[in-house]
Amino acid sequence: MKRDDYNRYRNKAIEMFEKANIILTDEEKDTIEVADFGLDMMDETGLQLITYVNTDLVCAKELVLLPHQTCPEHKHPKRTFDDGKEETFRCRYGKVYLYVEGEETKERATEPPLKGREYYTVFHEIVLTPGQQYTIYPNTLHWFKAGEEGAVVSEFSTRSTDEEDIFTDPRINRIPEVE
Amino acid sequence: MKRDDYNRYRNKAIEMFEKANIILTDEEKDTIEVADFGLDMMDETGLQLITYVNTDLVCAKELVLLPHQTCPEHKHPKRTFDDGKEETFRCRYGKVYLYVEGEETKERATEPPLKGREYYTVFHEIVLTPGQQYTIYPNTLHWFKAGEEGAVVSEFSTRSTDEEDIFTDPRINRIPEVE
Repeated sequence: MKRDDYNRYRNKAIEMFEKANIILTDEEKDTIEVADFGLDMMDETGLQLITYVNTDLVCAKELVLLPHQTCPEHKHPKRTFDDGKEETFRCRYGKVYLYVEGEETKERATEPPLKGREYYTVFHEIVLTPGQQYTIYPNTLHWFKAGEEGAVVSEFSTRSTDEEDIFTDPRINRIPEVE
Repeated sequence: MKRDDYNRYRNKAIEMFEKANIILTDEEKDTIEVADFGLDMMDETGLQLITYVNTDLVCAKELVLLPHQTCPEHKHPKRTFDDGKEETFRCRYGKVYLYVEGEETKERATEPPLKGREYYTVFHEIVLTPGQQYTIYPNTLHWFKAGEEGAVVSEFSTRSTDEEDIFTDPRINRIPEVE
C-alpha cells in the first residue's frame, strides 16, 4: 500500500471513530492499522483497526469498516499455546453483517471425497447493530461486511496473532505492507 | 440493598452511559449490576457495571463510577485455572484515579514481623482520562475512585470470578444482595 493511500484510509477511520464517539489519544491515531489484505481493492476488501491491548492472554481492538467494506473469510487455528483465538464482536456504530461457519451437513460425512466445503458447510448470517454482539469460537470460518453507513465494532478476544490467521483466498496477505 | 435503591443507582448508571455515548440494549439495561459491597454507603463506596461477555477465557465489562465514588481495595488471587484475573482499564468518560500496588520496600525484607502492609507497600497513582488505559496484572492490590464528573471505564480481562476477589476491608461482600 502506498503511504498516501494509508493516510487516506487512516483519516477515514478517524472520522468513523468520531461518528461512533470513541475517543482515541493522538498517539493511538498514529498507530491505526490499515489492512488491504494484499489485494489493493480497499473500498471492497479492507479493514481499519486499532489495538488497545494485546497481552499473552487478552486482546482488545476497535475495528472500522467503511461503507460496504468486507473483511474476508478466515479462521483462527489452533496455536502452540491454545486452541485458537476466541473473539467477541460488539457493534458500536452502523451495521455489520457477520457470516459464521455452522454445522457441517450430513452429506459431508456420507459422500467423500469432498469436492469443496461450499457444498457442505452452512454459514449463519448474524446482523449486528449498536449494542448487539456475537462470540466466535476458535477455528471457525467467518467473514463480515458493513452496511451503507459502515461500522465500528469492538473486539474482545484472547491473544491476537494476526500472522497465524488462515484466509480462504490464497492471494491474501494479512500483514499490511506500507511502501 | 433495597429494590428502590437498586433502581436509583441503575438509573444513574444509565445516565452515565448516555453521557459516555455507550449504547446498551434494553435487555442489557435490565442487567446492570449495582454493587454496594455490603457497606450501605453507595455514594462513597460503590460500583455500577455491565458484563458484555464472560467466557472461560475472556471478559469485557463497562464500569460506571458516580462522582467521587470509590471501588475499594482488592486483588484477584490465583485460581484453580490460572494465576488470577488480569485486567485492563480504559477510560471512556470523566476521570478515574487508580491506585496500584507497587514494589515492596526494603523494610519488608529486613524488619519482620510485619505490623501492617501499609508501611511496606508503595501504591502508584495513575490518572486516566478518556482514551487512556492501564493494565493490572494478577494478584496485585488496587482501588480506584472517580473525579467530580464520575467515570465510565471499559474493562478487558481474563475470565471474571467476582466471588473470588479478595478485599482488604473484611466487612466487604462483593456479591450484591437486592432485597
